Order: sequence, then C-alpha cells, then structure tokens
Amino acid sequence: MGRLMKGLKEVAKEKKQVEQITDMEVDFAQWYTDVVTKAELIDYSGVKGLMILRPYGYAIWENIQKVLDGMFKEKGHENVAMPLLIPESLLQKEKDHVEGFAPEVAWVTYGGSEKLSERLCIRPTSETLFCEHWGHIVHSWRDLPKLYNQWCSVLRWEKTTRPFLRGREFHWQEGHTLHATAEEAINETMQQLEVYAEFCENWLAMPVIRGRKTKKEQFAGAEATYTVECMMHDKKALQSGTSHYFGDGFAKAFGITFTDKNNQLTYPHQTSWGLSTRIIGGLIMTHGDNNGLVLPPKIAPIQVIVLPIAMHKDGVTDKAWELINRLKAAGLRVRGDFSDNSPGWKFSEYEMKGVPLRIEIGPKDIENGQCVAVRRDNGEKTVIALEELEAKIPELLDAVQQGLFDKAKRNLEEHTYDAVTADDIKEIINTKGGFVRTKWCGDTECELKLKEYAGVSSRCMPLSQDGKEGVCPVCGRSCNTTIIWGVAY
Amino acid sequence: MGRLMKGLKEVAKEKKQVEQITDMEVDFAQWYTDVVTKAELIDYSGVKGLMILRPYGYAIWENIQKVLDGMFKEKGHENVAMPLLIPESLLQKEKDHVEGFAPEVAWVTYGGSEKLSERLCIRPTSETLFCEHWGHIVHSWRDLPKLYNQWCSVLRWEKTTRPFLRGREFHWQEGHTLHATAEEAINETMQQLEVYAEFCENWLAMPVIRGRKTKKEQFAGAEATYTVECMMHDKKALQSGTSHYFGDGFAKAFGITFTDKNNQLTYPHQTSWGLSTRIIGGLIMTHGDNNGLVLPPKIAPIQVIVLPIAMHKDGVTDKAWELINRLKAAGLRVRGDFSDNSPGWKFSEYEMKGVPLRIEIGPKDIENGQCVAVRRDNGEKTVIALEELEAKIPELLDAVQQGLFDKAKRNLEEHTYDAVTADDIKEIINTKGGFVRTKWCGDTECELKLKEYAGVSSRCMPLSQDGKEGVCPVCGRSCNTTIIWGVAY
Repeated sequence: MGRLMKGLKEVAKEKKQVEQITDMEVDFAQWYTDVVTKAELIDYSGVKGLMILRPYGYAIWENIQKVLDGMFKEKGHENVAMPLLIPESLLQKEKDHVEGFAPEVAWVTYGGSEKLSERLCIRPTSETLFCEHWGHIVHSWRDLPKLYNQWCSVLRWEKTTRPFLRGREFHWQEGHTLHATAEEAINETMQQLEVYAEFCENWLAMPVIRGRKTKKEQFAGAEATYTVECMMHDKKALQSGTSHYFGDGFAKAFGITFTDKNNQLTYPHQTSWGLSTRIIGGLIMTHGDNNGLVLPPKIAPIQVIVLPIAMHKDGVTDKAWELINRLKAAGLRVRGDFSDNSPGWKFSEYEMKGVPLRIEIGPKDIENGQCVAVRRDNGEKTVIALEELEAKIPELLDAVQQGLFDKAKRNLEEHTYDAVTADDIKEIINTKGGFVRTKWCGDTECELKLKEYAGVSSRCMPLSQDGKEGVCPVCGRSCNTTIIWGVAY
Repeated sequence: MGRLMKGLKEVAKEKKQVEQITDMEVDFAQWYTDVVTKAELIDYSGVKGLMILRPYGYAIWENIQKVLDGMFKEKGHENVAMPLLIPESLLQKEKDHVEGFAPEVAWVTYGGSEKLSERLCIRPTSETLFCEHWGHIVHSWRDLPKLYNQWCSVLRWEKTTRPFLRGREFHWQEGHTLHATAEEAINETMQQLEVYAEFCENWLAMPVIRGRKTKKEQFAGAEATYTVECMMHDKKALQSGTSHYFGDGFAKAFGITFTDKNNQLTYPHQTSWGLSTRIIGGLIMTHGDNNGLVLPPKIAPIQVIVLPIAMHKDGVTDKAWELINRLKAAGLRVRGDFSDNSPGWKFSEYEMKGVPLRIEIGPKDIENGQCVAVRRDNGEKTVIALEELEAKIPELLDAVQQGLFDKAKRNLEEHTYDAVTADDIKEIINTKGGFVRTKWCGDTECELKLKEYAGVSSRCMPLSQDGKEGVCPVCGRSCNTTIIWGVAY
C-alpha cells in the first residue's frame, strides 16, 4: 500500500500543474464549460453557436449513434439522407410548423454570385422534406408504413448558445414515419419514446421520467409530444429525447394520400422523433465531478486506461502491453499511455476524460502477479491477480455502470417533491431546487402564470398517473392529471 | 430443368409489365437515370442538384462508410465534426483556395429575420475550418501528427447536375492531416491514395489507375493532387478518390506554427483526401446492365434474395425461412420476399436492384433436397444440395465479386490505347472511346490545346512510369512523362 499512498500524494501535487477546473459547487456553469473544453470534447469555431466536435467528443457521439442505430434498425427503420436546404414555400406549407421555425432559420440567398429566385433555409428539422418525398412515392397501402431515420446536423439561429446544450448547429437523428392508421402511428410514437428511455437508462445510466408535453411545450405542428426528462447535478431538467405524433395534419397540408385496402383515398398518419448531441451535455451534468468527466462504461470511447508505473524498469512496458492485448481480446475498449508524462499527469488526464477504469501496473505489482484497478466514479481501488484479469475487469465496469445509474436515480428521487400550492412550488424551487409534482387543470393560462410566479416550466405529464383527485396549484380547480414542474436547460 | 425454363419465359413476359429501362446502347445517359430511379436509389427534391438518398441508395453508402471508416481508423485516423458554415473572411485566407471555390458556394446572409454582419458560406470543403482549429490547438511537436477525418455533406453550386455524379450537395468523407515534416505528409498523401485504390479494387470491384494530376487539374491550394481513375461502361473516366499534398501553404496562410524538437518555431505540413457518393455513380456505370443495377457482393445491402416458388404449397414458406436463417447465421446479408407479387415480378425487381445472388426454392426443389442459385452478373444457374448451402453460397458470391472485377479490368485494358500524335488521340476518342496513353512535355498550354482539339482532359500521370523517351503529342518536344487522356464525368 506504500506505493499507492505515495502515488496519491504525487497526483495531488501534479494535478494543479495540469488541469484546473472550477468546482461545480462554486460555479456550475463554469465547471461545465471547463469540462467540455479541458476534456477536449469541443473547440469553438469562428461562428457563434457552431462548435467543433473534437475526436474525443465525436467518439462519444459515434458510440451513441452505433447503439441507437442498432435499436432503430431492429425495429425495422431504414436510414435515408434528405437535402440540407428547404425552399421557403415548402417550409410554409404547414401553418403551425412554419410559425414555430421560421423565426430561427438561416437563409441562403446567393448561389455563387447569383441571387436565388427563392430563399432556401438550412433545415431546422426535416418534416417538410419527408412529406414532399412521400408525396412522390406513396400511393397504396402496400407502400406503408415508411419507417425512416436520418443522421445529420440541423441549424437553428438561437440567441444564446452553450456547447452541446444549445447550439446554432447541432447533430442529431430525426426519425420520420408514415402509417396507414392513427393507431399504428400512435404505437410508433410510444415505441420510440421507450427506445429513448431504455437507451438513456441502460446505456447512459441516466434515469428518466417518461411523459407527455403540455400543448404549450409541444413540437410545432404536432398533435402530441412525448419526452424523456432527466435531472442534472444542479437539479435542473434536461429534455433528452422527444417523440411526436402528428395525426394527418402534415399529410393534409402536403396532399399525401394513399389508396387503402377498401380502395378509398385516405390520408396517412405521421410521427417524428429525435435525440441530439445535447445528450452529451446531459451525460456530463449527470455523472461529472470536480475532477472532470465521468463516463458510463457502456458508452465510453476508452473503457480502461492502462498506466505503467516506473516505466523505465525492466519488463513494465511489456507487461502493460500484455494486459492491454488481453483486455482487447476480451472485447474491451482499452488503451495504454506510454508517453514520458509523469504518472500523476496521466492520472489527472484520464480522470478529466472520465475513463471508467484505470489500471496501474508497476515492478512491485509484477513481482506479486497483480495489478491495481481504480474506479473513476468513486476512487475505489481493487488489487487484481493477473490471472483473473478477464473475469474481474468486466465485473468492475458493470459495477461502475450500475453505480452511476444508482447515484443518478437517487439524485432524481431525492429531489422530486410533491406540492399542492403555487407558493409551495416557488419555495421548493428557490430553496432546494429539483422537480415538483402537482396536479394540473390542463389550462395553458395556469401554466404561464406559474412560469411567471415561480420561474418553472412544465416538464411533462408522466405516463404513469395515479388518477387521484387534487387541485390545480394556480386556479385551484379540482383535477386529476399529475404534472412535473422544474427549471430546464 | 422444366421448371427453370418455364420460369424464364414467365420472367420475360412479366418483366415488361414491371420495369422498363432504356438500353444502355440506345442512350447511356437515360439508362443511367432509369437505373438510379427505378432501383430506388434516389428521388429528386424541390431544389435542383439536391437529391434524396432513399433507403436502398443510403444502405450502399452506409456499407461504403463502414469499410472505409475501418480502413482509416486502422491507420490511426480519428473522426471529428467541423461546422457547416465558413465566414467569408476565413474562406479568403488562402488565395488559390478561395479563387477555386468562391464562385460556387452558397451564401447564408440572414439568421432568422436579422441580416448577418458577415456572409457565411456553406462548406464546399473544410480545409479552412481545420486550419483555424489547428491554429488553436497545435503548439508543440508533441501535438503532431493530427490525423482527422469527417463524414458530412458539402455544397457546391454547380450549373449542371446529375444524381451522384455532380450535385450541388453531396455526401463524402474528407480526411485532413497535419504533420511535422514534408516527408511525413507526402507519405500520408500516398498512403491514403493506396487506401482508396485498395477499396475500389477489393471492395467495389472497380480497377483503378493510380496517378498524379497535372497542375491544371489539381485541387485549389494543393501542391500535388493524386487520383484513382476508373473507366465506365461507356469508356468515360470517373475520378474516384483524390489525395492532396498541401506543403506548408495553408499553415503559412493561417499562421499555424509549432515548436519542433530543436525548439524552433516551424510550419507544419498538411494533406487532405476525399471520396464521395460519386463512387455510387461509378458502381452503377461500371457493373450495371440493361436489367438494372449489378452490385459487388462485398458492398451489396442484400447479398442473397431468397424467393419461394409456388408459395401456397405446403412447406415452401417454412423451407425458404429455414434457408434465410441458415444464411444469416453464416454471416450473410440475406432477405426473403414473401409478398403476393408473382415470381416473375420478383425476379425483375431484385435484378433491377442488383442483388448478386437469387435463390429459388419450390416444392420440386424441396423434394430433391436442393435449391437453385442464380448469379446476377451472368445469369448462371447452380443447383445446390441443401446440406451444402453454407459452403456453396459464399463461393458463388466470391465468384460474382471476382467476375465483376475481371470484366471491368478487361474493359479498362481493352480500351486503353497508346498514341503518339494529337491526330491519333482525336481519332481514337472519336471512333473507339477510352483512355489514350501518350508522353507529355508538362506544359499546361499543350494540355489546353489538346482539350480544344480532341475534347480530352488529362486524367493522370500514372504512378508507374516506364521512363522512356517520347514526344509531346502537341508541341512535339521530346519528354519522358507518361500521361493518360480521356473524356471524364
């Protein structure tokens, strides 16, 4: 244990020289910005709100893409690529949709030196493009359903921007589906919400509340919007994925019809659903700590970092490589760092990057036929006999994954409060922060008044409702819908 | 064999009702357009030159991405995402580069209802963005090399457009790397050219000529551009992938410096290399025939289509599913078609889509413990004993892959001619078409004159040179550089 203690002091001394991030208790926003830059997830570009996803940040997104893409395809979805640009006249076809998006799109007005006869906007979302295409190719019930998805970036000309959380450009997937009946489309909407919920919980270790958005908060043009909501370290909410049911509103606006099995001309029913790089902001604010990022093993680009100690000593480098190769062969994402940086520098570096497990191997360890594994989430050290490496490391990774989920779940549960009056809500938000659960009459006016009075927005009406009678905290009318209020990113 | 013959007649009869494409000998351009639309690769959008990649077209691109991405990563490259938009002032930093691209970019001038203070162009390529970013993060020799790649779409405001071959928007990958020395950067340039060559030959069954572009044809801002050139069915050339060496020109223009091992402030050396969805156009025009698309098995979204014959008969559907599941378990991409369309319709459909192998299974086959496999490339039928399925089908797929390559290689070799004079070149191009190999003095003026006189552009100076003396077909000066001329897409 002597070496371990010395190692820790060494870390403490050198950490200061390498990385300095603001404590989250001092300034949560600055902590967040420090983590996204110091962990080398992003760099700022010359255009406000357009960021550079650096290799480590993009590798997280690639892992997210890989898992989600598999989940979509398992349910029969196919990927497509729609154009980047939407003619102004096409954007305007669905009234609610254009009202929601027109104020925040970027307009292309020139192609080379020629002024365009019609302005084209860079897609803020692609419903209109999918509708136009379906108008060309859907004729009969045999052509349905269409189960499409697209991975791309979109632009929304936001006033205030923050890396991952709110950007003028962001990367996402947008699923778009078309169905013969309303029932089928509603099933799809709920199915994809569940895909997001399972992905957040099982892969990102982010517990969610599944629910429906109020009319005020729903997507421009949707009949119903469903959401998975997560709670961050600072007890604010992050909307992490949304799934929309459109009814046949878009189909009517775009003149999409099909001949059904009874030979009747019918309007199809539509859905869309999306999850974006915003979720990486969510990962950071759910699991990160004052030493930097903390990544769930299932999504981490590097699951295990192997660090040789006293590298110049005979056999250390060889043994470290042996461990790396054995763990790679066991299917893990593992790396070694053989640079001439000090062990202390390396400890800090991979803590900052949130690598779930660090393995230290030095001359003493080799003598004893062991290595030391250190968990990123709680600092716990485990001495592992080398012959048990392939058995123990996956166990430890599972423990980190579960530990992160449990901790986040506790955070969510401990900071979700029941309340009855608007005063209660205001006090909870101002003194403790978190989610507040009340009944609600369903009136947008009450929602707006509460926003004004307590600074909260409705997060969702949870899918699991107790059905009990209560009163609206604003108008006092009796009602039985449960709703969650909170302050959101 | 009775059933097979009847099957063929049935096909011939029904084919007419299902798909009608123009013969390539009648009108090659129309044949091409018919294939891309009838095989459901693309649909046109409302904006000229911006196309929709439909599921089948996108699935080909996904397979291309998967293979190439693996090849890049194996050589140490990492993926990143750069912004979509480039400020006008940034685009202008490198003189040759802006001259090449400014006339053909799309300009964003408004964000929402606000006029932007500086115009932003949609990236036509991202050298300037990578340079800006590297200026932020590269300081020391320890920060080099940077081996980056990005998968994205780019925009170039072309006058004439054709699906895959020339679009205003196209999908591609653009690799960008930064190195401490010129030698390293040149090695990278050549290494990535070889990656493209191997990918085209081994995966797409498209034989290539590796070579260097003339000054006139090189990339805007590059010191040297290398290319892999392929020959299409109509004997025109398709530039299929390019790799550029930039020297330190961009680094100087963007002020990127690093401290080298001797503590000297130094300019790094740079490369970029790209391959786009254009290659799908190349696939079509290399392997397609008058029945539609023909896809090499290694890249085909569906490698084997299993078609039940006399589906209503007992046990046929079950047996077809059994074959599908066995082939899936053997790692093949396989599908069945159990729709109520006729076998003839299905034969045509999967021929149109270029599925490399069709398996027919009917009651007689089941009785005899066999199935019939039909090759898409040459129509060859093989009766396969069911117990040999997993052994024989991969063999047949390999044979299709090799057959396609050999055929394309013959096309390239048989239509590459040696010539000495400009008259020879003109006559070959006008009467036979193909590539013409001559010597060349290296003068751009001669290149331009030949374009004017014979309608050919220089394709490349092949990497393998015989070094023999000859004369320039235009000026008659003696010289020893071999060059290939042709008519290109």
